[in-house]
Amino acid sequence: MNQALISYTIHLADNSLVLGHRNSEWCGHGPVLEQDIAITNISLDLIGQARYFYQYAADLMNQGCLSIPGHAGPVNEDVIAYLRREREYRNCLLVEQPNGDWAQTIFRQFLFSLYQELLYGELQHSRDEQLAAIAAKSLKEVAYHVRWASEWVIRLGDGTEESRTRMFRAMDSLWMYSGELFEPASYESEMAAPGIAPDLVPLKPRWEQKIREVLEEATLNSDFAGGAASGYMQRGGKDGRHTEYLGYILADLQYLQRAYPGCEW
Amino acid sequence: MNQALISYTIHLADNSLVLGHRNSEWCGHGPVLEQDIAITNISLDLIGQARYFYQYAADLMNQGCLSIPGHAGPVNEDVIAYLRREREYRNCLLVEQPNGDWAQTIFRQFLFSLYQELLYGELQHSRDEQLAAIAAKSLKEVAYHVRWASEWVIRLGDGTEESRTRMFRAMDSLWMYSGELFEPASYESEMAAPGIAPDLVPLKPRWEQKIREVLEEATLNSDFAGGAASGYMQRGGKDGRHTEYLGYILADLQYLQRAYPGCEW
Repeated sequence: MNQALISYTIHLADNSLVLGHRNSEWCGHGPVLEQDIAITNISLDLIGQARYFYQYAADLMNQGCLSIPGHAGPVNEDVIAYLRREREYRNCLLVEQPNGDWAQTIFRQFLFSLYQELLYGELQHSRDEQLAAIAAKSLKEVAYHVRWASEWVIRLGDGTEESRTRMFRAMDSLWMYSGELFEPASYESEMAAPGIAPDLVPLKPRWEQKIREVLEEATLNSDFAGGAASGYMQRGGKDGRHTEYLGYILADLQYLQRAYPGCEW
Repeated sequence: MNQALISYTIHLADNSLVLGHRNSEWCGHGPVLEQDIAITNISLDLIGQARYFYQYAADLMNQGCLSIPGHAGPVNEDVIAYLRREREYRNCLLVEQPNGDWAQTIFRQFLFSLYQELLYGELQHSRDEQLAAIAAKSLKEVAYHVRWASEWVIRLGDGTEESRTRMFRAMDSLWMYSGELFEPASYESEMAAPGIAPDLVPLKPRWEQKIREVLEEATLNSDFAGGAASGYMQRGGKDGRHTEYLGYILADLQYLQRAYPGCEW
């Protein structure tokens, strides 16, 4: 029970940290200043959420005298983020996919933020008070991410031929990573039973409905969402089996703490 | 004296390791299979040279009971390559520049291999027997690198409008990193005096002459080499002041040894 709660909390944190890290790669490279600031702010929101979840996970681990492989003694948010290995990361595959062009970054954010909004909407009523509080606190941020990403999907989809082509390419390359969001890992099922984690099954049609509405307004192919174009779905990230990209993310993300162990400033 | 010899040996090794690492990023991504194999073989040659130089540097350091910051006890080739920090790397800035497109990779290799051929041609007569032996052994490999890169410069420069445009872009972006090759760092001057390191000053006009010959055959602007277009030159790599790229290279290159200290297989 405690192990599943820790795994679930770390899964929530990893999703936010990895997507936050990916978005932060845009910092200083955004298409216009306003959007550079917007995507960097979204990064900060996500990394902030990750931090709360990691802090809670660290408390639970220290109470149970649990640590992470290769580390002795108590853990904290930094130890969990910076010293775990690739197979110990529990984020879904979607968030670790490359930024690609602006359309791909937008579509990744769109799929994930809509999911996160529905998830946190339920999680704020969790029987675990800590998780409920973090979700409630984060919902306003996530609502903004949804609005921002949806507006961009519409602008690009219903924009020029070039932007529309790029949106189709983004949908083609990312859609297969969306199925995993709603396929519960063992720790999600175990936490759903006592009312700690939301049940993902009823969230899926609500998510698909919202996706369809935005894609239709963007004059994009809404068959993707639950329709014929759904197709084969990738899976594994929630259980630590990642795409080739996560290793490189961690090399970048963790290098400072690996090269200067325990450094502070 | 011994410290300068160690620094000089590590400088030679770092040049080869970093360019070898950069080239290896093409592995599996080359434009055609034959060239994928060619560039990967060049990587192996360069990393092999780096290994010989690091082994010699490790011997010298262990004889003098010297180590690297943050490491206790004797060193070996892996410790020197994988556990030094960015400011301790002494490679020139040219070799750490990004691959860019094929033209940029080719032009970087062309500038560097011509330099290395002249350098090793002299270094094989060094009064330091180890350095002389490594240089003599590596010269055949480097002669092939020169031939291969020169042929590509000619093919791309005197090719299509697209390839020609890309060569000009590569020349524009890389030329400013070529000056550092011939600006001796303190350890190079110190090693040149007793006939251990080649004197770089007479090498420069020979290098420029060769560059000009190939650029002319490639119908490219040969004014770059020693002419009016020479312009401002970047410097600092040989003394550990690097461009933004080296940190990311090291994060990738060193991650395994940082995450799994002392690992063997």
